[in-house]
Amino acid sequence: MKALEEKILAEGKVCPGDILKVGGFLNQRIDTDFIFQMGSEISRLFETARVTKILTVEASGIAIALAAAHYLKVPMVFAKKSTAKNLGDDVYKASVHSYTHGKDYEIAVNTDYISPEDRVLLIDDFLATGEAAEGLIEIVRQSGAEIAGFCAAIEKGYQGGGDSLRARGIRVESLAIIDEMIGENIRFRS
Amino acid sequence: MKALEEKILAEGKVCPGDILKVGGFLNQRIDTDFIFQMGSEISRLFETARVTKILTVEASGIAIALAAAHYLKVPMVFAKKSTAKNLGDDVYKASVHSYTHGKDYEIAVNTDYISPEDRVLLIDDFLATGEAAEGLIEIVRQSGAEIAGFCAAIEKGYQGGGDSLRARGIRVESLAIIDEMIGENIRFRS
Repeated sequence: MKALEEKILAEGKVCPGDILKVGGFLNQRIDTDFIFQMGSEISRLFETARVTKILTVEASGIAIALAAAHYLKVPMVFAKKSTAKNLGDDVYKASVHSYTHGKDYEIAVNTDYISPEDRVLLIDDFLATGEAAEGLIEIVRQSGAEIAGFCAAIEKGYQGGGDSLRARGIRVESLAIIDEMIGENIRFRS
Repeated sequence: MKALEEKILAEGKVCPGDILKVGGFLNQRIDTDFIFQMGSEISRLFETARVTKILTVEASGIAIALAAAHYLKVPMVFAKKSTAKNLGDDVYKASVHSYTHGKDYEIAVNTDYISPEDRVLLIDDFLATGEAAEGLIEIVRQSGAEIAGFCAAIEKGYQGGGDSLRARGIRVESLAIIDEMIGENIRFRS
């Protein structure tokens, strides 16, 4: 998605520790019009994939997942990052390692919210090593549903998580794929 | 909002510990069509309030805040619940007590994302004792912006947080106000 690549170059900031800050439009301050443009593009990419549900993980995935759900006209579910008191006992869960926060955490979805009949589109703001993606895939596996694909707004292609999923036959579409990020220089996959 | 009251009665579950579970449509599985109906209603309520920005707190507030932002055509910002590595040093922050999780936590917003010129509409899924609302108000106070109002999807009126904000002159609109919740019986404010 050319408009996203341009927005990353114009508004993103590369910071020490291989961090790309896009909090100005994607994951703390949301550029509302732009996130719906991204949602519309995701809908276009997966319009024939018979998606019945979108699954993401709190918190940064929720906005883009909801925008896509709006255009695909399906419900959206977000996995919670810890077993909160009001989540209930009957949950699908998986363990995820976060490089950003430097720790492991658990993600969980109430078993009522995904059924074996679902075809689930996984969405997240970032795809890097693929740890969060693996957690979401594990949750769908437990539910017995099918995976329609995975879509990230921004894939750090050089970290290999996306290509590893593709090699296993999962359809991965990312709206922008970064193949190199050195200093301030960002090179997108063409 | 009559449709929300009916949805709470049809799909909500009252659980021990004064918990109203609405995870089936509002805060884990999102009923996409319905959340946009709620967003449209919030937009109608605040259409003349000169809102320039919506502020909520992760994670359950994000979906309804984004739906409202879509109709009000303004950016949406969500406060993060802990100071993550990629949040930056320059943040507005406030301490919040969570009754659901039984602990205090910090919420933070990058100072770039709210400016003194903003008129901020605060949105959350629930308003009960008003602890999270106070945290958001404190963040707006630090930014120098004005508060256009507070809107919750569901207000537990009997816990007093909403009326306390109203008594201080803050415009509070909740899409459904519960004045009594005893056993399975829910009585809405008329």
